[in-house]
Amino acid sequence: MMYQNGTGARRLRELPEKEALRLLAGVPFGRIVFTRHALPAIRPVNHVVVDGAIVIRSSPGTILGSHVAPAEAVVAYEADELDGHERLGWSVIITGVARLVTEPGEAARLRAVLTPWVAGEMEQVIRIQPEIVTGFELVPAAVTA
Amino acid sequence: MMYQNGTGARRLRELPEKEALRLLAGVPFGRIVFTRHALPAIRPVNHVVVDGAIVIRSSPGTILGSHVAPAEAVVAYEADELDGHERLGWSVIITGVARLVTEPGEAARLRAVLTPWVAGEMEQVIRIQPEIVTGFELVPAAVTA
Repeated sequence: MMYQNGTGARRLRELPEKEALRLLAGVPFGRIVFTRHALPAIRPVNHVVVDGAIVIRSSPGTILGSHVAPAEAVVAYEADELDGHERLGWSVIITGVARLVTEPGEAARLRAVLTPWVAGEMEQVIRIQPEIVTGFELVPAAVTA
Repeated sequence: MMYQNGTGARRLRELPEKEALRLLAGVPFGRIVFTRHALPAIRPVNHVVVDGAIVIRSSPGTILGSHVAPAEAVVAYEADELDGHERLGWSVIITGVARLVTEPGEAARLRAVLTPWVAGEMEQVIRIQPEIVTGFELVPAAVTA
């Protein structure tokens, strides 16, 4: 793709749900967003998408593992690929309930396809089933006058 | 930097507050995290850091511009540079109150240093004064045995 002006104005093009999930599945990490003591909180984490759900790993020693997932709280999950120089790229946001995967065989199957980046006890598997999927792409505004 | 194994385990090194803010100021965009109807929400947005505060632009037609900032809500703001291949990088999260800049001279001064990426009415200027600053860097775990 070539654009005459890398810093020209952009507009947001809404992404179809299927394309948004495909983009999210194609990147290795995102950011989980939750509420902690009524305050907004966010943590970057690596993920895989399995059967249309976002799968992440956690540790019982973290807020995510000890409070958010056991409470089956609603979370948002965001991933993007944005180029700050070209001002192009995409962002996808899903909203859904975060649940601990408690069935041992299922948890083992998911652990096998998702290695945590961070060393240590990350035995918990958390699955987020998308309920709302939104995504946009930054595209040049008014390419023709 | 060279590492023998690009997919080796990592550990999190906590960043000093000053270094965290410097990293945040060095990138052009991040993600604002807020609560909407008691649910977690997140929006990517471009920013500048002025006098230690994060400055973004918004439009009265958005949730951010019409509800979050006028209510002086507590928000989180996250920026990162993470390399999914090398599994290295950093993430910075600040928490603070989002406020509309209402003083016309001040708003004009800030608009002059922050061009919105997205075309359209983005007349509002929102300032987030950091109250809590946390940051981490992903570093190789146990470089020596």
